[in-house]
Amino acid sequence: MARACVVGAGMTQFGVHDEPLEELFADAALSAIHDAGVDGDEIEGLYFGNAMGGITENDTHLAPKLASHLGLQGIPCQRFEDACATSSNAFKHAVQSVEAGVHDVVLVGGVERCTAETGLDTEAMTRTFASASHREYEQPTGLTFPGVFALLTKRHMHEYGTTEEQLAEVAVKNHAHGQYNPRAHFGREADVAEVLDSPVVADPFHLMDCCPFSDGASAVVVVSEDVAETYDGDPVAVSGIGHRTDAVPIADKAAPVETTAAKEAANEAYAQADISPDDVDFAEVHDCFTGAEVIAIEALGLVPEGEGGAAAMRGDTYLSGEMPVNPSGGLKAKGHPIGATGTAQIVELTEQLRGSAGDRQVAGADKGIAHNLGGDTATAVVTVMEAAR
Amino acid sequence: MARACVVGAGMTQFGVHDEPLEELFADAALSAIHDAGVDGDEIEGLYFGNAMGGITENDTHLAPKLASHLGLQGIPCQRFEDACATSSNAFKHAVQSVEAGVHDVVLVGGVERCTAETGLDTEAMTRTFASASHREYEQPTGLTFPGVFALLTKRHMHEYGTTEEQLAEVAVKNHAHGQYNPRAHFGREADVAEVLDSPVVADPFHLMDCCPFSDGASAVVVVSEDVAETYDGDPVAVSGIGHRTDAVPIADKAAPVETTAAKEAANEAYAQADISPDDVDFAEVHDCFTGAEVIAIEALGLVPEGEGGAAAMRGDTYLSGEMPVNPSGGLKAKGHPIGATGTAQIVELTEQLRGSAGDRQVAGADKGIAHNLGGDTATAVVTVMEAAR
Repeated sequence: MARACVVGAGMTQFGVHDEPLEELFADAALSAIHDAGVDGDEIEGLYFGNAMGGITENDTHLAPKLASHLGLQGIPCQRFEDACATSSNAFKHAVQSVEAGVHDVVLVGGVERCTAETGLDTEAMTRTFASASHREYEQPTGLTFPGVFALLTKRHMHEYGTTEEQLAEVAVKNHAHGQYNPRAHFGREADVAEVLDSPVVADPFHLMDCCPFSDGASAVVVVSEDVAETYDGDPVAVSGIGHRTDAVPIADKAAPVETTAAKEAANEAYAQADISPDDVDFAEVHDCFTGAEVIAIEALGLVPEGEGGAAAMRGDTYLSGEMPVNPSGGLKAKGHPIGATGTAQIVELTEQLRGSAGDRQVAGADKGIAHNLGGDTATAVVTVMEAAR
Repeated sequence: MARACVVGAGMTQFGVHDEPLEELFADAALSAIHDAGVDGDEIEGLYFGNAMGGITENDTHLAPKLASHLGLQGIPCQRFEDACATSSNAFKHAVQSVEAGVHDVVLVGGVERCTAETGLDTEAMTRTFASASHREYEQPTGLTFPGVFALLTKRHMHEYGTTEEQLAEVAVKNHAHGQYNPRAHFGREADVAEVLDSPVVADPFHLMDCCPFSDGASAVVVVSEDVAETYDGDPVAVSGIGHRTDAVPIADKAAPVETTAAKEAANEAYAQADISPDDVDFAEVHDCFTGAEVIAIEALGLVPEGEGGAAAMRGDTYLSGEMPVNPSGGLKAKGHPIGATGTAQIVELTEQLRGSAGDRQVAGADKGIAHNLGGDTATAVVTVMEAAR
């Protein structure tokens, strides 16, 4: 079985956009296509992710529409939706299609508009984001995602002594990284006092513990390793993708704070890649909230259980540390256009593993991992990639 | 490469349901699981389709929720959305995953609620269904799907002399078949006068030329041919699945009335199955409107170009004819719960090819074809199945 490689990667600025979804997606897709040096008529399929466009823009059946806008009408196109893990799951299927020989060259990506540019106000958008929680048992209680992750983080604090200062340090770190990412929604420095002084959203989270929702798009071109050398873009190999779920609603999870789905997805990805967490040089993780990053790096085995907060405090997860986490700035600084977030992590892995990440380059990056969550940690997709040259 | 087989199939009554999506889906899924005689812990993945649940019920991230309700939490789950072709595309990916050896046993299905049980009125639902047309170029004009298919059908009438009586005969035939399907939404006989006397919805379509939108769910269990004999359910082999798209919006299509995507998807499916249209014993086609069935059977090569209307008039497409079309009653009589329609066609193919379709059994059914459209014919998925024993 030939491995799948990414040979092209592109994304828009994450932030506020007034273009329609097809134009936003085309920006990212054409960047990826140009980076790969692939001709349009070589692209055999579109694996596409969008989470909320039905609710926010009354726009479903987006895959053929976006393909048409790119001049790719005719090819098989499919839309995936798995909450915040939407485009990672599209990527998984694209990779599997290439590994199986169904396709040799495919385009993968996602797009979302989450800001007031959709025409929806904060109340309507809050209700929309809550659509990814349990309709009968959670939505009626008013439990939105800041509350979900606050509950998990409170438990982590109780069990391991994680502090608000440690959480704040995660935000400060990701903003420190994000200042070097020209496509970040909030690419500027912050300090611990600013985080702790910001308004409380859901205890223990202050506003600055929370990622922003953004408008944006991301895309990659995936090809078979057998033909990767024929394209312009430096190939980066996909050596493992794990995908697991956990019970919904959160009250039915056996061990919510462990994020069991993420642990099992990571183990699957490591096994496929034949590596251990010790081999990982850096990670892009789903830091929708600072506490989510703390829990994520433990689930991935990158730090010992309970050490996620302390690791940030010690500087271990900074670009200069022993295990850089979220060199892109993460969801926290880069932004979180829901359906685009998964493939945006793949874009960052690609750039890091090519050594083309500029001021935010992880030194000696040879193997990277991406961790993308959906909903109340019910979906987890974990991807291992490595330099192919 | 081992072929994929369906070893279990189930669906709910199509019609009006007040259960939440997870209970409706569980009814279909547990029927399929029971039919297959598969244990829950053997099921390795859920390939799931729902088209409109975000808009209609503020319920996204449905795949892990539905898996949890079935006691299947933990397995990889994914939601597909491709308008009315939603669960056919889920089925394609499930089949590909089995053919590739990624999984040996998977559950596939779809669910939708489209009636007033969602709490939405006709105006809101009309807007919801229109979300599958072009957001910028078509929705603002008020062009909803009766209008889209009326345009295609008017052109067909102009080019080939197809008549309103021929269209009415398609409805009459599908109701004649549907009276033998205990799960049909409108399983009762109709006559040509009733169709022609019903109110005009979009010229040339009367109300009785249009399928109803329904609540319902359908599911199948797909396994590798290598292990098919170990299950209780008679296996039916998937010998080809074609999937193509066409330009969006409709004004950009080179030849709208030919439904190019369907033609090409059919050719791909025939090639994979190594058969020609002459080998097909019966077809389930996407008769969202009577004119859509006329066009579909031509695109599939089951009747000569321009002969779709005349074929119904001659009785060729009746159960007793030479090429039975929509023995289930089709979308017209069986109903159309959008995300459930694709796998419901697969349920019908399975029952026909097992010879277990009762009063609506196609005599000598050995090879069947399913044709599922999404949007303004922009997505087409065509599946060939054959008796495996």
